Amino acid sequence: MEDCIFCKIVSGEIKSDFIYEDDDIVAFLDISPKAPVHVLIIPKEHINAVYDLGSSQEKILGKIHLAAQKIAGRKGIRESGYRLICNNGKDAGQEVEHLHWHLLGGKNLGGLIEKS
Amino acid sequence: MEDCIFCKIVSGEIKSDFIYEDDDIVAFLDISPKAPVHVLIIPKEHINAVYDLGSSQEKILGKIHLAAQKIAGRKGIRESGYRLICNNGKDAGQEVEHLHWHLLGGKNLGGLIEKS
Repeated sequence: MEDCIFCKIVSGEIKSDFIYEDDDIVAFLDISPKAPVHVLIIPKEHINAVYDLGSSQEKILGKIHLAAQKIAGRKGIRESGYRLICNNGKDAGQEVEHLHWHLLGGKNLGGLIEKS
Repeated sequence: MEDCIFCKIVSGEIKSDFIYEDDDIVAFLDISPKAPVHVLIIPKEHINAVYDLGSSQEKILGKIHLAAQKIAGRKGIRESGYRLICNNGKDAGQEVEHLHWHLLGGKNLGGLIEKS
């Protein structure tokens, strides 16, 4: 996708240090971290959000979560715990329309969502 | 797992209305909802958390997310948006040690985590 910032990160057009990469996935630090560990994990393929996933993309989901497991280990938060968040659409506050998971940890993350 | 509340829900020992079920997954309403739509999606198989996933379980992750897609559609939040959260371990506040996803929507869900 021409105007997608995450596609540009995948292609190298926007420089980013990958903390994890395999054939299908890359992961890098969030530039506006909300916790001591805040990593973004994304498929290299452009998919807008969960609502655009097809059954042929099932395997990617598994790979995303196994990558999360490895990254949590490397970041030393496997034992202390971590939260995976995938925002889809406006009410969730999805900021980049390229499917991505936030991996958060390194402190007590509090309640499930902000109190309103 | 003998003492796992989610395994008891899967087996029917604890009664729950499933809003989605297939061979590998069930989904039901959270008994303490944090948003107008708050569904729990779990694998029938007992897995403690993401850190216990093996590569043979990759397929389950895809199925969880395709189920989330269907449930969001049925609940009318496909367009408005929804958040998927998977808590692992203490810092994330994982309350039941049986891998599960929170599907949240039906209102603006605010920031990624609570402000501390």
